[in-house]
Amino acid sequence: MTKDVVVEHGESSKAPLVAPVASGVGRAASVADVFLRFLAIVGTIASAIAMGTTNETLPFFTQFIQFEAKYSDLPSFTFFVAANAVVCTYLVLSIPLSIVHIVRPRARYSRLVLVFFDAAMLTLLTAGASAAAAIVYLAHKGNVRANWFAICQQFDSFCERISGSLIGSFAAMVLLIMLIFLSAFALARRH
Amino acid sequence: MTKDVVVEHGESSKAPLVAPVASGVGRAASVADVFLRFLAIVGTIASAIAMGTTNETLPFFTQFIQFEAKYSDLPSFTFFVAANAVVCTYLVLSIPLSIVHIVRPRARYSRLVLVFFDAAMLTLLTAGASAAAAIVYLAHKGNVRANWFAICQQFDSFCERISGSLIGSFAAMVLLIMLIFLSAFALARRH
Repeated sequence: MTKDVVVEHGESSKAPLVAPVASGVGRAASVADVFLRFLAIVGTIASAIAMGTTNETLPFFTQFIQFEAKYSDLPSFTFFVAANAVVCTYLVLSIPLSIVHIVRPRARYSRLVLVFFDAAMLTLLTAGASAAAAIVYLAHKGNVRANWFAICQQFDSFCERISGSLIGSFAAMVLLIMLIFLSAFALARRH
Repeated sequence: MTKDVVVEHGESSKAPLVAPVASGVGRAASVADVFLRFLAIVGTIASAIAMGTTNETLPFFTQFIQFEAKYSDLPSFTFFVAANAVVCTYLVLSIPLSIVHIVRPRARYSRLVLVFFDAAMLTLLTAGASAAAAIVYLAHKGNVRANWFAICQQFDSFCERISGSLIGSFAAMVLLIMLIFLSAFALARRH
């Protein structure tokens, strides 16, 4: 703790007019940042695992219905698992930088880097979750005009699982928006 | 121009240690912000119009093929048009605030508001574009496992049009990521 205070004084000698209270708010924002990242990691891991282990084998066989439904039968679901895995890996890698911000709440360029990559990862995660959601909707409802039939009458446990696996991703999307705002807020506090 | 300088002096009396060069960079970032917003408006309008006016009537009829293909036959495409329209409206409304930032490059809380809504709109636009892309992919390739057949053999001009309409949205997504980074950069410059 003493070391932190020394660092703080060392920095504030460059900007003597900065109020001490600003550093406390910046530190609180940094702690919230680490916490939200952990929540988002849990959400993306849960989504990736729930979708990646989905597999249903039917006990009967007709001319049109397949024996087995797997997530990898549909490219959108493979993309969904990949996007969640990539975002989860990025979030794990960003935790150390986020912890550095607790010790040094005035850090600027490292926060800028986080804002950029958070926005890119938000886009990737949204793309994966939304593409999967479009296919899940089609699996439930089908489409009469395009002659695409709903497959959820046959594969009901498969459909429940893939629908549920979207929740973690959508929660992580909200968390990433909050993380971007929090970083911008921490940058705005510095004056 | 004289009025701007007066405003600058009025502000800098509150923060006397701010270097004058920071304001120039902040103003350049604000000009770039307005420019990128105009580009994103063009991209989202083009996408919404290209998708919203897509309509193909076939000159022949068989037992299985529909007479007509419209974007509104598929809910994902309706969502795509709505998302593009909402993001475009937001961007138009954000232009005045963005222009205020050229005159007052040190504005903080209005930039925070823009970062938050830019991130939310990025998510909405990505969701729309990605859901539409998933369905466009299905229309081109079909899916053997789910017994969904490709419809692009019949509706080739419809498929070309819906594929092309995605470009504007994906360009606007990249522009929105740049806008978020630019706002964060402008906030980081203020010291």
